[in-house]
Amino acid sequence: MTASPYPPPACPAEERVALADLVVAYARAVDDIGNVDGIGSLFSDDAVYDLSALGMGEIVGQTAIRAFFRDAFAGMAHNAHFISNIALLAYTPSTAARVQAYGHAFSLGKDGTLLEVKARYTFAMVRADDCWRIARLGMDMLLPPISSYNSPHPS
Amino acid sequence: MTASPYPPPACPAEERVALADLVVAYARAVDDIGNVDGIGSLFSDDAVYDLSALGMGEIVGQTAIRAFFRDAFAGMAHNAHFISNIALLAYTPSTAARVQAYGHAFSLGKDGTLLEVKARYTFAMVRADDCWRIARLGMDMLLPPISSYNSPHPS
Amino acid sequence: MTASPYPPPACPAEERVALADLVVAYARAVDDIGNVDGIGSLFSDDAVYDLSALGMGEIVGQTAIRAFFRDAFAGMAHNAHFISNIALLAYTPSTAARVQAYGHAFSLGKDGTLLEVKARYTFAMVRADDCWRIARLGMDMLLPPISSYNSPHPS
Repeated sequence: MTASPYPPPACPAEERVALADLVVAYARAVDDIGNVDGIGSLFSDDAVYDLSALGMGEIVGQTAIRAFFRDAFAGMAHNAHFISNIALLAYTPSTAARVQAYGHAFSLGKDGTLLEVKARYTFAMVRADDCWRIARLGMDMLLPPISSYNSPHPS
Repeated sequence: MTASPYPPPACPAEERVALADLVVAYARAVDDIGNVDGIGSLFSDDAVYDLSALGMGEIVGQTAIRAFFRDAFAGMAHNAHFISNIALLAYTPSTAARVQAYGHAFSLGKDGTLLEVKARYTFAMVRADDCWRIARLGMDMLLPPISSYNSPHPS
Repeated sequence: MTASPYPPPACPAEERVALADLVVAYARAVDDIGNVDGIGSLFSDDAVYDLSALGMGEIVGQTAIRAFFRDAFAGMAHNAHFISNIALLAYTPSTAARVQAYGHAFSLGKDGTLLEVKARYTFAMVRADDCWRIARLGMDMLLPPISSYNSPHPS
């Protein structure tokens, strides 16, 4: 992992709240299983969802990202993404920001598989129409994922 | 689950901090086992503590909420409620707010039972005497709770 | 545990963000295994790192703290410290602050040992050269730590 910059770049508190809101909105949207519009609308039109850390390559464009989540949601019963350690890495006033956050995530599949992930997300964010959107989202694993089998869960 | 509104309603950063402080104060108070005044004082006089998601109905009024925690604390050895994903759903300046938050919670009973819960809390908050209080607190489960047996823990 | 003060002391939102940034920077630095400068620079020259809750006494001074982490990092493969419940206990404008935070922490040793800790950190922070530093950091356990054996992990 690369070192954290400290102190972070100067950024008004109102903007820090707005950037954190987008990270939290992402986690909440991923946990709102089936709501493809909810997750899709957080990304810019030409956003990149980079899953290369999971061996799944890059998904390019909001349309492809929506399709990815439509497929992924189909196998999920319950998700919980607990976000913490939101850190500002770079900030261009009212235009762009780079933010990292930790996620302790649990995903229970309809087949009873429970996946526990400890990840670090890196967000490139852009501001358009008075609202921050995700332009690029990548992740890496803090610890190896843990997969276990629960009793099958009704969808 | 219902979709997250994004962006959230406009709210000054100072107020966002104050609302988050109340959520965190609740978690810290629940973990301060035995301190009934600590938890009770966070609720308004006519507050509702809604445990219907746990099949326990609604507890109405600060006096009843204090009695509930007095009983609940009696069986607890250690608690840890880790709060994340604080989201603002509604805000009326200086008067009322609706806030959701995630809690990854662990409760170790004096009998050695360890309960792990992944919950989402919904707070209705009201402001009185320059201080935010909980007017209603409900919760739903993000994933099914996990109950296991640890070696009995001294109280 | 001692009761949480609520409401917390008055403190501008910008400062609340800055204090939270230092807590998060600490967690991120501990997880950036091997980067002794990254962790060391967060402490003031005469800082105290109080590990007496772990039976390891106090480590006094930034030089000793760096040496401690150099040794500790040597046995670690992966760390993840998830911070939550950041609470302000005391604040002297632009000078000093006392902050508590929860940490749900996982540390995977090179020998395959996985340690899971649910801790509460107490930070005394001081401001110098326009930047907050840790003057004293102590911790206590919210629940007993859990130690388990994973398959050995390559360093």
